[in-house]
Amino acid sequence: MPVRSERSLPTRTQRRHSDMSSLTCQISMSLDGFVAGPNQSIDNPIGEGGMRLHQWPFATDSWREQQGSAGGERTADSEVADEVMRGLGAFIMGRKMFGPGDGPWDETWRGWWGEDPPYHAPVFVLTHHQREPLQMQGGTTFTFVTDGIESALEQARAVAGDQDVAIAGGASAVQQYLAAGLLDELYLHIVPIVLGAGERLLEGVGDPTLEPVKVVASPAVTHVNYRVVSERAREQ
Amino acid sequence: MPVRSERSLPTRTQRRHSDMSSLTCQISMSLDGFVAGPNQSIDNPIGEGGMRLHQWPFATDSWREQQGSAGGERTADSEVADEVMRGLGAFIMGRKMFGPGDGPWDETWRGWWGEDPPYHAPVFVLTHHQREPLQMQGGTTFTFVTDGIESALEQARAVAGDQDVAIAGGASAVQQYLAAGLLDELYLHIVPIVLGAGERLLEGVGDPTLEPVKVVASPAVTHVNYRVVSERAREQ
Repeated sequence: MPVRSERSLPTRTQRRHSDMSSLTCQISMSLDGFVAGPNQSIDNPIGEGGMRLHQWPFATDSWREQQGSAGGERTADSEVADEVMRGLGAFIMGRKMFGPGDGPWDETWRGWWGEDPPYHAPVFVLTHHQREPLQMQGGTTFTFVTDGIESALEQARAVAGDQDVAIAGGASAVQQYLAAGLLDELYLHIVPIVLGAGERLLEGVGDPTLEPVKVVASPAVTHVNYRVVSERAREQ
Repeated sequence: MPVRSERSLPTRTQRRHSDMSSLTCQISMSLDGFVAGPNQSIDNPIGEGGMRLHQWPFATDSWREQQGSAGGERTADSEVADEVMRGLGAFIMGRKMFGPGDGPWDETWRGWWGEDPPYHAPVFVLTHHQREPLQMQGGTTFTFVTDGIESALEQARAVAGDQDVAIAGGASAVQQYLAAGLLDELYLHIVPIVLGAGERLLEGVGDPTLEPVKVVASPAVTHVNYRVVSERAREQ
């Protein structure tokens, strides 16, 4: 049975008027603010209990279809799972989202996802260590950016064209773009669990003005899309 | 213009089947998990920036009416402001919600609210220090309970009859009842601000199973009512 529970909200502010594509981020967060569990490791990259944040799509038909299989239910979560993958022309991710550890690259590491990563678009990896670009199957390329978040965003926008750029994670990358006033939309999937420890999303981000523009409710999770009303947007 | 944006969700679990009234709590929380700002004091009982959590009702007609004045807007928030005050037969609060400091009582302190507090019902105050009950105007009485949270709940249920019992705050009282598996419903008003510091709500509460049963979306705040699926409920 289809469940539809979407609510677009009247907005208090004007959308940023610009011909640049938006910088967005969609991420699952526990009710106590964590986007990963404690004790992250190469065997457990999202930390203890962290997979509980990411279970909501698994029951949906959308996720099954994205994985090339059939079945699953059509729920409010399905629509969100579809929506968050639409209209994205490029991704940005932090180094730890791409691989474990830090320091110079182990060139045999080609990401967590195997030879056909789920991005199917250019991905810009924030790092302090240079590395040649990696071309993967299915349209994903990883480009390693060593000259900062603004450079990564500029490069991502250049290839994204009319489409949006998404921050794929993790917390630190989101924090840096949010604190710099560069993030336009933050789509939080608020999962009703209490992790108690781990990596918090909204730390060190200053005092951004957020405005809920859309809420999708399901029995599993509450999806809230926030527009970030940055200084830049307020000036326009 | 009336804005209505309420969504009742199908539930995965049966409601606790019992002739006892429910223990509920409704509280405003920042997106980073705080229910009060830092540096709480007698002059600033909800801490620096804490009032930003409580501004959402002020624009509503419901709040104005509760204050005995006219005006305000009819919004989705109005319905929540009405709803959270309905059907409550007694309240429980922590000591710091009643007054500043700790140690033996200064008997001249009669609460933060003046002679006619907004509860209009029996209120049970959790404390380590005995004090005679205080009868205020408008139907509010404060009874000081020194023998623990279960005793306070029992006393509150005894006077509430068919009506529910609500935890009025603060964070510590909510945490104790949630950790003990005694809380039935947690109605969070998720306010789209980042406080950065202060008193967190969901700390030291273990790993409760929460289930969103209702979501009300407004441009100001996202209201999510969670049923707490306690061990006690799961057994029934």
